[in-house]
Amino acid sequence: MKENRGLLVGRMQPIHNGHLQVIKKTFEEVDELIIGIGSAQLSHSIKDPFTGGERIMMLTKALSENSIDSSNYYIIPLVDILMNAVWVSHVKMLTPPFKKVFSGNPLVQQLFKEENFDVIIPPLFNRTELSGTEVRKRMINDGDWKSLIPNSVVNIINKVNGIERIKHLSQKEISEKIE
Amino acid sequence: MKENRGLLVGRMQPIHNGHLQVIKKTFEEVDELIIGIGSAQLSHSIKDPFTGGERIMMLTKALSENSIDSSNYYIIPLVDILMNAVWVSHVKMLTPPFKKVFSGNPLVQQLFKEENFDVIIPPLFNRTELSGTEVRKRMINDGDWKSLIPNSVVNIINKVNGIERIKHLSQKEISEKIE
Amino acid sequence: MKENRGLLVGRMQPIHNGHLQVIKKTFEEVDELIIGIGSAQLSHSIKDPFTGGERIMMLTKALSENSIDSSNYYIIPLVDILMNAVWVSHVKMLTPPFKKVFSGNPLVQQLFKEENFDVIIPPLFNRTELSGTEVRKRMINDGDWKSLIPNSVVNIINKVNGIERIKHLSQKEISEKIE
Amino acid sequence: MKENRGLLVGRMQPIHNGHLQVIKKTFEEVDELIIGIGSAQLSHSIKDPFTGGERIMMLTKALSENSIDSSNYYIIPLVDILMNAVWVSHVKMLTPPFKKVFSGNPLVQQLFKEENFDVIIPPLFNRTELSGTEVRKRMINDGDWKSLIPNSVVNIINKVNGIERIKHLSQKEISEKIE
Amino acid sequence: MKENRGLLVGRMQPIHNGHLQVIKKTFEEVDELIIGIGSAQLSHSIKDPFTGGERIMMLTKALSENSIDSSNYYIIPLVDILMNAVWVSHVKMLTPPFKKVFSGNPLVQQLFKEENFDVIIPPLFNRTELSGTEVRKRMINDGDWKSLIPNSVVNIINKVNGIERIKHLSQKEISEKIE
Amino acid sequence: MKENRGLLVGRMQPIHNGHLQVIKKTFEEVDELIIGIGSAQLSHSIKDPFTGGERIMMLTKALSENSIDSSNYYIIPLVDILMNAVWVSHVKMLTPPFKKVFSGNPLVQQLFKEENFDVIIPPLFNRTELSGTEVRKRMINDGDWKSLIPNSVVNIINKVNGIERIKHLSQKEISEKIE
Repeated sequence: MKENRGLLVGRMQPIHNGHLQVIKKTFEEVDELIIGIGSAQLSHSIKDPFTGGERIMMLTKALSENSIDSSNYYIIPLVDILMNAVWVSHVKMLTPPFKKVFSGNPLVQQLFKEENFDVIIPPLFNRTELSGTEVRKRMINDGDWKSLIPNSVVNIINKVNGIERIKHLSQKEISEKIE
Repeated sequence: MKENRGLLVGRMQPIHNGHLQVIKKTFEEVDELIIGIGSAQLSHSIKDPFTGGERIMMLTKALSENSIDSSNYYIIPLVDILMNAVWVSHVKMLTPPFKKVFSGNPLVQQLFKEENFDVIIPPLFNRTELSGTEVRKRMINDGDWKSLIPNSVVNIINKVNGIERIKHLSQKEISEKIE
Repeated sequence: MKENRGLLVGRMQPIHNGHLQVIKKTFEEVDELIIGIGSAQLSHSIKDPFTGGERIMMLTKALSENSIDSSNYYIIPLVDILMNAVWVSHVKMLTPPFKKVFSGNPLVQQLFKEENFDVIIPPLFNRTELSGTEVRKRMINDGDWKSLIPNSVVNIINKVNGIERIKHLSQKEISEKIE
Repeated sequence: MKENRGLLVGRMQPIHNGHLQVIKKTFEEVDELIIGIGSAQLSHSIKDPFTGGERIMMLTKALSENSIDSSNYYIIPLVDILMNAVWVSHVKMLTPPFKKVFSGNPLVQQLFKEENFDVIIPPLFNRTELSGTEVRKRMINDGDWKSLIPNSVVNIINKVNGIERIKHLSQKEISEKIE
Repeated sequence: MKENRGLLVGRMQPIHNGHLQVIKKTFEEVDELIIGIGSAQLSHSIKDPFTGGERIMMLTKALSENSIDSSNYYIIPLVDILMNAVWVSHVKMLTPPFKKVFSGNPLVQQLFKEENFDVIIPPLFNRTELSGTEVRKRMINDGDWKSLIPNSVVNIINKVNGIERIKHLSQKEISEKIE
Repeated sequence: MKENRGLLVGRMQPIHNGHLQVIKKTFEEVDELIIGIGSAQLSHSIKDPFTGGERIMMLTKALSENSIDSSNYYIIPLVDILMNAVWVSHVKMLTPPFKKVFSGNPLVQQLFKEENFDVIIPPLFNRTELSGTEVRKRMINDGDWKSLIPNSVVNIINKVNGIERIKHLSQKEISEKIE
């Protein structure tokens, strides 16, 4: 049984080419990768436009498009629990056993370090271009968001009318009276 | 049985003349109106000074003062659930069936549109004057808040010592040591 | 893109040969199958001995052992929300879009029927032998539980000391004083 | 302003003639009555078949059918909070101020008594016939449930296919394998 | 600094002489003892009559009556979280660090063993007499409950009208109609 | 029995000399003091670095260092409940009965005043120096934090590697790609 298993957590709003580069690199260090979809309960906001289910589908199709063998990863939605001291335990409850954690987030690093996990900072790529914030900004402003994300993810975003959704959500409230 | 039913949601902190104008206008398009009191669990803050129960009483008395037949509306407290994708379903659980939704809020519009409701933007009135924010500002600064809201609501606010409450809450913390 | 997608939900405590027979049969009717792990937050009881994460791993390995292509299914942990009227919406939030639901459970059937899903009763196999209750009973009483479940699942149960766990949990409280 | 206000709480699954008799009697002792719909989050079970929203609509129509003036009562859905010591406070948060509580339930009586409310045991009518349990039993067994509840409630139950719902929920699970 | 610290968890409904015997015995094995009050959110039922706060006060006074040095223990209310796999982590979040766990409950033992704690079964005393169930039964049936619990706890129970409370809660519902 | 009991609530992130001065002063007005640890569920952030359990231990040791008799106070962790109108009731559920509340926070003052408690503003000391914000700032910037807090608390912070923790948490995210 493959035992060298790692965890990588991200909100993936949406999955973009930067995520894929990191995921590919990560597979150089583990046999199996658990990919946690963070804040899985959030959706329909400018910062978190897509549902957990939409993000699971996007990630699955993007990994397939990139020929990553689906028998080597687990995609797990993780809802926020708002108790940092319990978060590692909550992640463990919903995942196969793992030893390594890949994260650039200081809080995630600290929480897993205190529980004696092997915490690894994922390698950096051209970061300014490849952030979720940038992708979402381009979606709202009719910029070129498609070149930043895999084709299969573009298809899903079109399918769920994702651009219409994020643009509508970015409008200011029309009637403030019904506040 | 009357079947042409609509939904209108607002925090109503507090109910003011703008809400009443919109509610009256809304009745031109439906037989029965469901009025959802948003963030019903919040109270005792500058943005949300009144409890759900106080707001239900205010709205009931204000509609009565305006001779709106109480057999034609339902007032339903709605607590926040922090999962946008589930919110429409949560509202439906607590309300009679409805087809139309009146809202100026882009998030509310988007969520109901995705569930195939008929979303209608309520007509606008003189909006700068008639916002909840303005009413609460005047309450804190000894301005003329009474002219913006129905008499029956003024009475309830006095009864629950609402002005004293919001003024006290607007104070800065006196002792920062017990932080 | 494959669009003929179905949902099947089970607690899978643990995954046994009956689940696998049903899953295989289900693939005759859909291109992609979403498998929801019910009560994912429960574990360490006689009725629900295994964690959500353990069950995800068991199911993944069992499907692989049965040569089911991992690019055709999604495994999603579902925690209980205790509001039946919101449950369908909660499932949809965490899953790719689907039209068909496979379930022998009257509550699941009723909830999805009311939301206009296509509800299908999965075919029956030799049911008395192949129930989770029977598997757990044999685990506690040193019966032959191994013949009822896939080999890969036996391995995982051994790995997590599952038999020791369920046997310990089945003990009566030794000291009632610290109640 | 009318100040003699009372509270009466019930699950109302469904509203039946016994509830109406008690409500009418209660109005002899108060000017305004707050009717709390208990366990408002529950539905789609044999014990709690109807949603909070369905029950609000049933009660509203039943009171109208009985010519009870809708300006004299408030119908408030109350979700369970599972902390008895906080329950009174939770009810107060969502209701207009009240002094009297009408309840035949020892827990409700005790909780309000400890908070110095005036607790009144509602008068008894022919109790064996008029219980929610009896109504639901007759619904499942094709008995005469209609004579126990107001006509307007019969109409709503038919409208939401309530009998089909409760009968389906009373079926035993067809396939135990997908447990 | 004293580092040999242990944990003991009980619902303590109410604290009785059996708890005190076990606590005294436990101090032979640790320098400091953390006493977790389980199900701290429950009260006002026959099985759980007293609030978390009442139980904290009872335990404090009972330990003082028994001359146990208050600088050597911590009393911590623990609410139920309904996720066994996360429970140990939740307890750790609210307590000083500890290595030993004293429990006669198989679930508590199993959960802490899996997290590599040193689990110790507390010594047994005359168990039939000294259980919380027995104490509560005697309270309801006018039996001799006072001889089973410390004097200071008797005083607190009288002070909060505990006997009246549990007796009232043990009544059958008087009016079943308002179900 | 000592009946003159008061409540004082603070997040205590961490306990510092200002807290201790106020606590000592408070004992001039009560026989017993309940000290509520606010936001007990929060930890591992710059604003709330320490867990509830760590703060309970810090406070216990600091009071002992200051020769405050441990039989005269109760330390109770309080998690946030996000419903202001229910908060007082939630605090009462977890604490021995009390009449006086010591707080410099307008919200706490208002909530307890509305429930007819005796609210007292604690005396002020040299406030700019002695705030939790200042202590945490010095921890991050290698300033002199040790002089602001009791020695026993310094020891505990060192023991749990608290400075390393808060410094790590104050880092900017290294890789923004895995957002």
